[in-house]
Amino acid sequence: MTDTYSWLFSRCRHAQLHYNTEFRTCMMIYLFLGLLVHIFTPCSSLENGMFLTPPMGWMSWERYRCNINCEVDPDNCISEKLLKDMADRLATDGWKTLGYEYVNLDDCWSSKKRDAQGRLQPDPKRFPSGIKALADYVHSKGLKFGIYGDLGNYTCAGYPGTTLDTIDLDAQTFAEWGVDMLKLDACYSNASMMAEGFPKMSLALNRTGRPIAFCCSWPAYQGGLPPKVNYTLLAQICNSWRNYYDIQDSWESVMSVIQWYGKNQDVLQPAAGPGHWNDPAVLIVGDFGLSYEQSKTQMAIWAMLAAPLFMSNDLRSISGKFKEILQNQLAISINQDPLGAPGIRVYKDKNFEVWRRVLSKGSFAVAVVRTSYDGTPKPAILNLAQLRIVDCLLGYQVIDVLESKLMGFYNLLDIIYFQVNPSGVMLLYISPVCT
Amino acid sequence: MTDTYSWLFSRCRHAQLHYNTEFRTCMMIYLFLGLLVHIFTPCSSLENGMFLTPPMGWMSWERYRCNINCEVDPDNCISEKLLKDMADRLATDGWKTLGYEYVNLDDCWSSKKRDAQGRLQPDPKRFPSGIKALADYVHSKGLKFGIYGDLGNYTCAGYPGTTLDTIDLDAQTFAEWGVDMLKLDACYSNASMMAEGFPKMSLALNRTGRPIAFCCSWPAYQGGLPPKVNYTLLAQICNSWRNYYDIQDSWESVMSVIQWYGKNQDVLQPAAGPGHWNDPAVLIVGDFGLSYEQSKTQMAIWAMLAAPLFMSNDLRSISGKFKEILQNQLAISINQDPLGAPGIRVYKDKNFEVWRRVLSKGSFAVAVVRTSYDGTPKPAILNLAQLRIVDCLLGYQVIDVLESKLMGFYNLLDIIYFQVNPSGVMLLYISPVCT
Repeated sequence: MTDTYSWLFSRCRHAQLHYNTEFRTCMMIYLFLGLLVHIFTPCSSLENGMFLTPPMGWMSWERYRCNINCEVDPDNCISEKLLKDMADRLATDGWKTLGYEYVNLDDCWSSKKRDAQGRLQPDPKRFPSGIKALADYVHSKGLKFGIYGDLGNYTCAGYPGTTLDTIDLDAQTFAEWGVDMLKLDACYSNASMMAEGFPKMSLALNRTGRPIAFCCSWPAYQGGLPPKVNYTLLAQICNSWRNYYDIQDSWESVMSVIQWYGKNQDVLQPAAGPGHWNDPAVLIVGDFGLSYEQSKTQMAIWAMLAAPLFMSNDLRSISGKFKEILQNQLAISINQDPLGAPGIRVYKDKNFEVWRRVLSKGSFAVAVVRTSYDGTPKPAILNLAQLRIVDCLLGYQVIDVLESKLMGFYNLLDIIYFQVNPSGVMLLYISPVCT
Repeated sequence: MTDTYSWLFSRCRHAQLHYNTEFRTCMMIYLFLGLLVHIFTPCSSLENGMFLTPPMGWMSWERYRCNINCEVDPDNCISEKLLKDMADRLATDGWKTLGYEYVNLDDCWSSKKRDAQGRLQPDPKRFPSGIKALADYVHSKGLKFGIYGDLGNYTCAGYPGTTLDTIDLDAQTFAEWGVDMLKLDACYSNASMMAEGFPKMSLALNRTGRPIAFCCSWPAYQGGLPPKVNYTLLAQICNSWRNYYDIQDSWESVMSVIQWYGKNQDVLQPAAGPGHWNDPAVLIVGDFGLSYEQSKTQMAIWAMLAAPLFMSNDLRSISGKFKEILQNQLAISINQDPLGAPGIRVYKDKNFEVWRRVLSKGSFAVAVVRTSYDGTPKPAILNLAQLRIVDCLLGYQVIDVLESKLMGFYNLLDIIYFQVNPSGVMLLYISPVCT
């Protein structure tokens, strides 16, 4: 249909040279067909040029929550100091050059009241320099600044929400402050308010003229699945969306996210792509609840899912081993693959699940997750043919991503043998020998 | 009653000097009363002099399971090499001097068949030197050697079990090998076989003349609780007992153990004491499934429970941070307190639970466990009076055990303030200023 449409357009252009009835008829048909194309195009994405690969950076919520007690806990309360600290670390400790560029302030940044003009304003004690100055600081480090809002009467933590009548004003305020990304939550909202408000905010952000990526929590409040959630529409208005519960600082929580994505992959996998991503919530690597093995597993599966890599941790004190996981270049390049096609789970038994992701240039990523907890490493035996990695008959190079180690070159039926630790993962980068 | 009994015995001894009717009557009364004393003594423990404090050491099962594949995995299969490696590490890396003295071989050590004389025998390939030589090696390091049996037709992994008719022979075999501790499991058994077999093995071990500590899995196969489980009887025949499921390599598993012990503490706490301990299963600190915080929590609660400190991990590769937890001297001394009274949970809400243990010399241990997973440290506020630590009106010295740090001296109503990380713990050692 799109081809017909293009042909028709060139015909009309031709007719235009002789502006006449033929041209007007032509254009009417053209516009009518345009409407049809618009209606029937299966997934047209928000075309603000943002998030062409999954965004990366840092986000305050999971690790710092609504800690506003700056008197007792000045280093860890939600304040401009905390955000500047994290911007400093991102810029200095090798994060920025790897792509971790967003510094995202979550809930609890604002004053409990809007200002005299009805505008959102930051808490004056914790953000004495104001949000614009903070965004400027972040920009001065070569980073981007994200903020949090809530389409509802209040934010989840009880701060002023963005109601339907303040959408335009709030979008304008964010743009004036130099915000680069808005996470819009939906506590104290309802289905019709969300259905009207999220598209409206998308439009309002576009109208500001400032490129502001739009991260929508809408589907998470609607169960994350059709028919209540329309992923085609979401792709048109949001650059990413949260569709499942908030992650908590535990392996159980990470696993529940992974299981939900696996179970619903037929819906979720096709929904995502360049400019519009599923967001399974933040990385908790470097926090309190995950072991080293479990941390590698989260990183691997977030890479497979083409998930936003927003860390919620303390970059000032993260230990070397956990930093290495988050800074693994090949894992990041899998996550950022320009094809933008998320992986799916292709196998599951009581000990293992296997995820497979198609990458650009004929490459693949495969993650083998150990889902049983009997304490000894278990052997896994695979071959490429089994994994339907068969396009290059000459074979593939296989890299153990998390150990940054070449495992070797494999023909399609060669046995690939390795062991996987309890709650651990083997992440493989598989690239064709064929050129 | 015991005093009357002693007085009577001296009277009879006196009568014996004039061997007559008085002596015979005296002895009949004496023996009858002896029977009554035996019946009515509420909790008389197995008096083999073993486990006067909870045993400490290493055990193969959780970490190494039934890995018998020595050809592919020679360093990690159940073999004399593995046990010798661990004995070397216990002796060399500071473990032994802290009290970690048992090297315990679990299931899968034996041949699939008994020998021609009907005796258990080790797998000849994996234990070519025999068990006696292995026990000798362990003893030469100043350590003790433990072995595994199963009262049933087969062990859990399908090796020869100890049936009622082989109890005496197997006890004799273990004694001849120089075994210092027997863990007797109960797969492929039944209630009546266990009821007869566990007391019989206890007697058989005593009869060998070798002190062999007896660890019984019996209650774990009977739900761990009265009326099916008789803890008074267990204390008379076993030095420790497993009463809940095998631990797995996950925080979820550790928490389920802790919750079960908390829930059933009215039964479990009084059951344990010097020479007879509840065994909530092995320490998995240093394995794959626990974060650093969670590892500290397991160590703290195992100290509070007066639990055997059997580690099931790889002492050859354990990292420094996890080793420090297991080698924390004050945590160990809480575990080993000579009073031998396990702690109990005295408080529980949605974020915290507080455990309290009475120690010797008027001291106490208190553990505050964070049971919620929202990612930020949470403040806890306590005082000694609240904790019913009030005997010394002058106040107490409080030490943060896991940080090995003096927190200060506190009067009974002084606020003790600290923060607890998600799935983490604060373990306090509280000793009176009064002498």
